[in-house]
Amino acid sequence: MARWEPNARDRLERAALALFAEHGYDATTVNEIADRAGLTKSTFFRHFADKREVLFGGQDVLSQRFSDAIRATAPAATIGACLAAALESAAPAFTPERHDLALQRRAIIAATSELRERELLKRAGLSSAIADALRARGADDTTARLAAELGVLAFSTAFAHWAAPKNRQPYTEIAHTALRDLQARAAALGSEADLRA
Amino acid sequence: MARWEPNARDRLERAALALFAEHGYDATTVNEIADRAGLTKSTFFRHFADKREVLFGGQDVLSQRFSDAIRATAPAATIGACLAAALESAAPAFTPERHDLALQRRAIIAATSELRERELLKRAGLSSAIADALRARGADDTTARLAAELGVLAFSTAFAHWAAPKNRQPYTEIAHTALRDLQARAAALGSEADLRA
Repeated sequence: MARWEPNARDRLERAALALFAEHGYDATTVNEIADRAGLTKSTFFRHFADKREVLFGGQDVLSQRFSDAIRATAPAATIGACLAAALESAAPAFTPERHDLALQRRAIIAATSELRERELLKRAGLSSAIADALRARGADDTTARLAAELGVLAFSTAFAHWAAPKNRQPYTEIAHTALRDLQARAAALGSEADLRA
Repeated sequence: MARWEPNARDRLERAALALFAEHGYDATTVNEIADRAGLTKSTFFRHFADKREVLFGGQDVLSQRFSDAIRATAPAATIGACLAAALESAAPAFTPERHDLALQRRAIIAATSELRERELLKRAGLSSAIADALRARGADDTTARLAAELGVLAFSTAFAHWAAPKNRQPYTEIAHTALRDLQARAAALGSEADLRA
């Protein structure tokens, strides 16, 4: 797409996040985003349906990656292995170069209730994508839904840790640790050992 | 509230659900709801902020009940016992007389994407209420969030079972079974025994 405008999507995203941070999300227009990126409005609309999509388009990509990764696991893989594969598939979005963007994005979303709601809905979408993919491999509905919640929680814990201002640990390592930690908590919660509040 | 209008809230709710089912949610006005209930518009607004609140006001009551029930448990109660107390606290909303309303409500929400989104957000609110109450008793953040997701999943599974057209089993019984079942699945998921997808 748009080979005459190198990195257009990335430039638009950076321009939008900078403008949202400077003037607020509501006050920023698509024209201003395109101007700041040195691109046209029609280029913007080739990459994003609207300015909200700059913040949330990545979530749809993530849902698709999670789903594809789970569907690609070996038939005998455990559910934990499926979740690990899903979390790993998100790694390309969480490289060191994208660390500052993640921080900016989080601050912008936190500042606007409409965006916080959209984030919650996108998170529910991630959970559905995981549950659907697990069901497609034969998991029963309840297990698929529980495992999906565990996976999303592992993902959001890992993301928060990775996006912390001074973090230098790679996302994949953090994600594996978060998943193992949640699995251990699930085991304890299920058997109620050592888990008195 | 409004002691000269017996059961005003219940009458307004039944009138609203009937009108939503007949004419659709979007086409129904507050005036029509009040008329159908034989009450005034100002009575409507003493009970509900808007027509959407007729469908979702109960969720806020539920969040409060879940939270109060968990905070009222004995200090040594397990997390599972806290979740059981939360689920039990919802029983007054799921009596046999309210069974037809639950079915109507579900059909109305399923028909409108804005309402489905609102339902997801309210569900996230239930999860936050449970997690907050568990943290207030000393649970660590990650365990509180995982347990809250398990609790909400148990609740939504139980609700779906209870609200099924021909169900006659009492809600509390269903809720306990759903919670125990999810705890067993959490244990298995954590230890990965017998859980190949």
